[in-house]
Amino acid sequence: MMVNDPSVVAEVAAVFARYEAALVANDLAVLDELFLDSELTIRYGIAENLYGSAAIREFRRLRPLAGPGRHLVQTVITSYGSDTAVVSTLFHNDSAPGKVGRQMQTWIRMPDGWRVAAAHVSVIDD
Amino acid sequence: MMVNDPSVVAEVAAVFARYEAALVANDLAVLDELFLDSELTIRYGIAENLYGSAAIREFRRLRPLAGPGRHLVQTVITSYGSDTAVVSTLFHNDSAPGKVGRQMQTWIRMPDGWRVAAAHVSVIDD
Repeated sequence: MMVNDPSVVAEVAAVFARYEAALVANDLAVLDELFLDSELTIRYGIAENLYGSAAIREFRRLRPLAGPGRHLVQTVITSYGSDTAVVSTLFHNDSAPGKVGRQMQTWIRMPDGWRVAAAHVSVIDD
Repeated sequence: MMVNDPSVVAEVAAVFARYEAALVANDLAVLDELFLDSELTIRYGIAENLYGSAAIREFRRLRPLAGPGRHLVQTVITSYGSDTAVVSTLFHNDSAPGKVGRQMQTWIRMPDGWRVAAAHVSVIDD
């Protein structure tokens, strides 16, 4: 079990950057692509608990935009072996002063690329 | 990449049950054991963001007990390959009616056993 193989971390950093850009741009096609298409995929969101990628896709079509006021801090990408990584980050949003968001994703390397198999987003007082 | 190999899921179910029992009993030795001892381990808690297992250990010594009023629902354990699993669960607490907790953990098989490498716990309105 190699932790933080540089080549694995670089791969996940690239796909996470793509995910974050898609989130801010509300690029639903990319967001859908990067979440593992499975009924086992889970996303606990700021105010909702979504089981299965179908529920996650449906929610995205109703959700408010993250928007350009989102800023990530204390982002940590850690890989375990060659096929697993966790991306944890805090975030602030210009529209929600005094609050801090927390986002944690488990990425798995599937045959067609890295996918988010589980995610949890929440907001608390800063 | 085998998803949900039954023997892997069974292993993680057993260690997760041990973790949950320790949480309710506030058995700090077991909780410390089962979190990966690493500065890379992250735990976003109900009201705090902890980076590194030292910070997590320190916090546990100050935290309120989960207590026997905690009840898990919609618990899902999914393994990816032989060394990674995600455990996601909702929980209710008798002391917090109208609220639902969300707990997501990424477990990694390390040489000395399964360990939580990342965890995120939050509470929202039910």
